[in-house]
Amino acid sequence: MTLAATTPPETSPEDSGRQRKRGAELERAIKDATIAELACGGYGNVTIESVAARAQTGKASIYRRWPTKQELVLDALDALLSGPLLSTEELPLDDTISTRDALLSLVQRVSALMMGPGGEAMRSIMGESLRDAAFCAVFECDFFDPRKQAVIRLLERGVRRGEVRPDAASGLVPEMLAGTLLHRIVIRRRPINEDELVELVDGLLMPAISPR
Amino acid sequence: MTLAATTPPETSPEDSGRQRKRGAELERAIKDATIAELACGGYGNVTIESVAARAQTGKASIYRRWPTKQELVLDALDALLSGPLLSTEELPLDDTISTRDALLSLVQRVSALMMGPGGEAMRSIMGESLRDAAFCAVFECDFFDPRKQAVIRLLERGVRRGEVRPDAASGLVPEMLAGTLLHRIVIRRRPINEDELVELVDGLLMPAISPR
Repeated sequence: MTLAATTPPETSPEDSGRQRKRGAELERAIKDATIAELACGGYGNVTIESVAARAQTGKASIYRRWPTKQELVLDALDALLSGPLLSTEELPLDDTISTRDALLSLVQRVSALMMGPGGEAMRSIMGESLRDAAFCAVFECDFFDPRKQAVIRLLERGVRRGEVRPDAASGLVPEMLAGTLLHRIVIRRRPINEDELVELVDGLLMPAISPR
Repeated sequence: MTLAATTPPETSPEDSGRQRKRGAELERAIKDATIAELACGGYGNVTIESVAARAQTGKASIYRRWPTKQELVLDALDALLSGPLLSTEELPLDDTISTRDALLSLVQRVSALMMGPGGEAMRSIMGESLRDAAFCAVFECDFFDPRKQAVIRLLERGVRRGEVRPDAASGLVPEMLAGTLLHRIVIRRRPINEDELVELVDGLLMPAISPR
């Protein structure tokens, strides 16, 4: 015990983890490698081989978890968008957070992701969705729709708080937010700044959804 | 003269026009063929040869007018979107038309185009724009920006009419409209109905841009 504590720990959990990743760490490395491959080469050029090489693992480790490239790509995108209102988890909002603050936080986090390294990966996935109607349908069902529903639940919570008019708690609001940010950042490749995000929420969105 | 009038007119202006189109008619046939080729095969598969074959003309007729495929494609898309607020022409609005009616007419016409045969061509062009940053920059400059400016001019006219608050006459409104319709119809391949367009304009947009 004393010896082990003073000797350089050549086989500490950290080190062996670097040599051979397992479990959650391996899954994360594979998803990160998938996003990086999408960003570099586009959806059409991503292969299980290229992801395995980048994640320093074997193809079997990937196929065991994701039978198809499509499932791997959508799961990797899902992991990129995590946290309240970005992931598909239930609303984890503190009840002191107003609808306005939650919406501003949402557009801030989504736009930061789109402007970061994940933006090029989103471009690849959107390109595939434009090319292939079947991919588009899976993307809609597995990815977009649960997130749209999360924003509708936020708006319904806003109705109960008296901050949102009842007929504004519809799919049009999340579609408008997603469309505006995708169009600016992912499609037109232009950044959006903090003042514009505040104008989007306080200038356009809140007056539109507040009780009349 | 009498003989000519009773004999089947084998070389009437209509017939010779079909055999060999010229001028504006030929240009229109080439642009229509370009949109059809984009819709069938995607941007990457469109060639001057395939457009010439579909338009029943020679490659030289196309190269004489459009030195590159990119110029031809953007011109064809430009021709698809014509008329008030859709084309890049100056505001040709009757002064009795309200801002609300002009915006509703705009979203009705844009969404009808996106849901029609031109929608698949738009998907191809957007896919190319996602793949190629240089194409994206030309598209922004030649296509999107002049249309955004036309909507800003409509909003400025609304400010003068007392229908729009001065700080709403910015680029965010046309970006939001374009983004919402592109996201719903072109990206997610879902139709939008008349009630939703009215809700978009009367429920969300007008309350956001009207004087407070």
